[in-house]
Order: sequence, then structure tokens, then C-alpha cells
Amino acid sequence: MILITGGAGYIGAHVALELLARNEDVLILDNLCNSQRSAIERISTLAGQRPGFIQGDVRNRRLLDTLLRDYPIDAVVHCAGLKAVGESVHEPLRYYDNNVGGSLTLCQAMAQAGVFTLVFSSSATVYGDCCTMPINESCATGQPTNPYGMSKLMAENIMQSVASSDPRWSIGLLRYFNPIGAHPSGLLGEAPLNMPNNLLPFLLQVASGQREYLSVFGNDYPTADGTGVRDYIHIVDLAQGHLCALDALRERSGVNIWNLGTGRGYSVLELVKSFEQVSGVPIALQFKARRPGDVTCCWADPQKAADELGWRASRSLQDMLTDAWRWQCSQLETEWIREAN
Amino acid sequence: MILITGGAGYIGAHVALELLARNEDVLILDNLCNSQRSAIERISTLAGQRPGFIQGDVRNRRLLDTLLRDYPIDAVVHCAGLKAVGESVHEPLRYYDNNVGGSLTLCQAMAQAGVFTLVFSSSATVYGDCCTMPINESCATGQPTNPYGMSKLMAENIMQSVASSDPRWSIGLLRYFNPIGAHPSGLLGEAPLNMPNNLLPFLLQVASGQREYLSVFGNDYPTADGTGVRDYIHIVDLAQGHLCALDALRERSGVNIWNLGTGRGYSVLELVKSFEQVSGVPIALQFKARRPGDVTCCWADPQKAADELGWRASRSLQDMLTDAWRWQCSQLETEWIREAN
Repeated sequence: MILITGGAGYIGAHVALELLARNEDVLILDNLCNSQRSAIERISTLAGQRPGFIQGDVRNRRLLDTLLRDYPIDAVVHCAGLKAVGESVHEPLRYYDNNVGGSLTLCQAMAQAGVFTLVFSSSATVYGDCCTMPINESCATGQPTNPYGMSKLMAENIMQSVASSDPRWSIGLLRYFNPIGAHPSGLLGEAPLNMPNNLLPFLLQVASGQREYLSVFGNDYPTADGTGVRDYIHIVDLAQGHLCALDALRERSGVNIWNLGTGRGYSVLELVKSFEQVSGVPIALQFKARRPGDVTCCWADPQKAADELGWRASRSLQDMLTDAWRWQCSQLETEWIREAN
Repeated sequence: MILITGGAGYIGAHVALELLARNEDVLILDNLCNSQRSAIERISTLAGQRPGFIQGDVRNRRLLDTLLRDYPIDAVVHCAGLKAVGESVHEPLRYYDNNVGGSLTLCQAMAQAGVFTLVFSSSATVYGDCCTMPINESCATGQPTNPYGMSKLMAENIMQSVASSDPRWSIGLLRYFNPIGAHPSGLLGEAPLNMPNNLLPFLLQVASGQREYLSVFGNDYPTADGTGVRDYIHIVDLAQGHLCALDALRERSGVNIWNLGTGRGYSVLELVKSFEQVSGVPIALQFKARRPGDVTCCWADPQKAADELGWRASRSLQDMLTDAWRWQCSQLETEWIREAN
């Protein structure tokens, strides 16, 4: 059985679905602080079977001990964590507590229970701003410019130390680039409870009339059109990377770092244009000053994951945007139906 | 009132004593995991007044909340932490839990209680191995090579984020070089409950016949005599630096970093020779291979502390070794008396 912490969230739910699709037993632990119980229903509908679900917090050591004792868990995919960069600047202690404290508590409980296989939701933000593109896994980690990124790097470093101290650990650090998109069914996607933090959720709210315009931070970067370039990756590709990592960890010990990206960067304006083509909806833009901490370009060298995991992202930017738009429309429909009743 | 976490330990006890000597109210919190209750008696004897003492853990949030509610605490000197580099490699989770988790819990409790003045026991280990000597505070922090050093850097980074998020914080990060020596009374010094971790406690055990020889790790470093060079600082000088930091923080906000060192390095062989002169006891040496993670040289630029704190170390290497040897002899006497009774 695989325990997925944060399994009701955007990434965790897609990982759960992919695991269920190949008939793995899945137990989801989520405190629902930024996700909804309905995600569990949707996973069940799509998979044709129910994952186990416990509402609880990964920082609750006693709960973890109980779960690891009562369920035949042999690996953990650790997606639980807060992820809003801006919020982390204002509430750093909450971020460190959830993301670092949570990872620490999880590792302690796993070590005590004798469960040593761990896949961790890390982020390309740990590379900081000091690398040449594309970024491969041997690039040094930098000094992330915000507590969110710092918390991911701290959690990684804790896992590195843990693996050095005990050869029984098999840990995969998955450094995500920019996951976007949704399940092609339109039933599962990113559903931020509060203000969205990333480009695409904002853009989707503009497209569906919930916001007037999309703020583009910086159009004077040294890129082809002046806007920042990112490596967007389809959430389903990303989720499948977790399964490949779990498989690979059966044969590997220690810490293994894998970039999960496509290897191709798109600028903000390219993404917006592609969305307009896919959806037929024009997007109003407003250019704003660069945000401190934003890097100019960031895209992955995905070769290590290809070589070691046999994994490559296969879905195009058009796929990502088509699926994201379908999800957004289905969300709105649900809301209309709710309001109508 | 000043709360000193880890106030029964080597550094904390000397800080407590100096604070009491100038009539500050002191409350000591210590879990006694690597210190003894008798330290509190000795502080009381030397100071002519008793500090408050609570046996408890800095990770215990409820306890911290109670202390911060029930005592008129206006500043915290945070010395609680594990400090054995070698042990940290084998038990990283215990180190991260105590040192990072403890600092996080303390900051959370302080913020909630509205206490925003904090002096933190950091370490020159956060500079890693990438700096030219002497090290000043604007040198970049490196990647410490062991979980102990990593935990200090993580705690510093958490405090940096916290101070950026709320201007009410006044934080002093004191980066210690190599504190040695003891109180000149012979009543207070380093009393490791287990295997000593640092050069001088080892040397003292050899001098007093508890060990046969002193292991010197590496005599092929590019230094004058081939052994590593460190900036040893008298524990009383170091403790006084904390008082100067507390004073300075009344006028400063944000994070302030101060090196606490003498600015002068001595090699292992210089220290041994100086000890033999001071004590008249010859020390048998055995040269061993370098230890991974040990740097060649490390000494402070203490100018920033001089300028901003009006603080300079005034005690010589001879003072440090004389006081350390007096402490060691008085410890042995105590043991002999105990055994004789």
C-alpha cells in the first residue's frame, strides 16, 4: 500500500488516480487545508475504486504512527505542503512548520515503523538563480529567495542526511518544474481555495470572467518577447513520473534526484497566445514590474529521468491548456448548478 | 527577564552567570539531556543569587506558552541544541528535531507572546569551506558538511525569514568560532555527559589520565605545522558577547549577524604545546587521517562585533587553557571526594 500525504491536493490527487489505475492500494492523508473532500469522490469515480482516506495532518506524529502500524504501507509519496510563494513571505513560520516540520515528523515515523521508501514533492526552486539552462540534477542548489523554496530545500537536505545515516532508505526527490493542466476528464484539477498563486490559475479566472485582466510581471527580461520562460508540464505526465520513481526506488537506495519537466520552455506570452488559440477566449493583459525572486528562465534537462526512470513527458502545451480549460469550465458548471438549486 | 534556553549547558550557564552578575533576572530552561542540575547550583554560588530554573524542552510548545505568559520575559537567548558533529551524522533526525524544530517552536511561541528579541547560538560552521580568511559576516554561507552545521544554518534561515516578515523582530545571530576554557573559579566549565566531541575536552581527558593519547586528525594540511588552525575563544569572552548583543538589539531591528571569535588562529600543535606549558603535563599524540568535513583553517574577522557591539575577546590562549585545566582538576577532585564517601 502507498500512503500519499496531501493526496487530496492538485498533485497528490493525480498521483492517487494513476496509482489506482494500475491497481495499487492507496491511502490518502490530507488535512484539507487547501483541498476538498470532493477530490476523493472524484478520484473514486474516475478510478472505479475508492482510495483509503484519513483527514489528518502529516505533523501529527501519533496519527502517523497509527497509520503506519494499522495499514500495510510500504512506501510514501509525500505531497503534503503549503505552496504559495507570496504567502510564505508573510507567514514563514507556518511554511517551515508545515513543510519542514511535516517532512521531519514523517521521516521519524517512517524510520520507526521500518518504512524506508519515500518519494518527495520537491521543486526546481531549489536550484535558485545560479544555473545555466537547461538545469540538470548535478547543478548546485542555490539559496531560494523565499521561505517556500527554502522549506523545500531544507526538507531535501534533511532527507539527504537521513539517507546518509541509514542505507535502508530509498528516497526520490522529484524536482517539479511548472505543473499545469488537469485530468482530461475535466473532473480533477487545481482548485485553490484562496487566491491562486500561479500564472495559469490566474489566466483561467480571467478567461472565465472572474478577473478583468492577467498581470504579467516583467516584460523586460532578456528573452525573445521580454517575459519569463518556464518549463510547463502536464499534471498527468508529472503524476506518472511518481509511479516511475516508485518503481525505480525498488532497485535503488540512498537519495535519487530527478527533474520532472519537459525540457522545453515557453514564455508567458507564448502560453497566453496558445491558450487563446485553444479556448477561443481573448485574454486581457497588464504588464507590471518584475517580482523580486522571479528568475528569467527555467527549464529542465529531463534526460536523467528518461535514462533512469524510463519516463518522459508526452503531453504538449496545447494538451495542458485544453485540459485546464475543460476543467475550469466544468468547475463553473458545477457552481452554476449549485447556485441554481 | 531574560529566558535562556539550554541555560544549564556549557555556553548557556556562562551567559546566565554574566547576566546575573549585572543583576538581570534570568530564567533557565533546560531539558538536562547533556547537562546537569548541579550547574544551576554552581551558577547560584558564583552569582550570589539563584536564576529561575525550569526543567523542560524547548520543543514543548505548551510549556513555552506557559513560561512566556507567567514570567515577564522580554528577550530570549537560545542556546538549547545538540552539538556533537559526529553524532549528528548518525542521528540526523534527532539533530534536526532538536535544533531546527526547537528553534521553530521557540519563534512561534515568541511571536504569539509578543516577545521579539532573540539571540541565537549559531556557529562559524555555517560558512562552510568556501571563504578566505579571516571570515567576516558578509561571506556567503556555504553548505555545511554535516547535519549539525546544516541544522544551525536552517535555524538561521528560519530566523531570517521571520525577521523579514515582521519588523518587530530584533534577532542576533552569534556565529561562534571555537569556545573553550572555563570560568576562572574552576566551578563552571564544559561537562559533556558522553564522549567529548571537541579537541580540548579530549586533551583534558588525556592530561588527567582518562585517555592514553590525543588523536590529531590530519597533519598534512597546508598550514605551518600541518595541523588544522582554529580561532579558539574563551567561554567568558563569548558569554559577554551575548550581553553586548542583547544591549545592541535594543537599538536594532531585523537580523544582525556577529562573529564571536578572537581574530587569531592557532594550530592543533600550538594549542597542545601551550597546554603543556600551562599545565606542566605532557600530552601523547597520535596522528590520524583527516576527518571528512574538517576545514583547514578557520578564524574570524571580529571587527563587526567590535564596531557594533563594542565587544572584543580579551583573554589569551594561555588564559583559556589555564582555566580549562583548573576546571578539569576541580572536576576530578569532586569525583574523588564522591568516590571516597
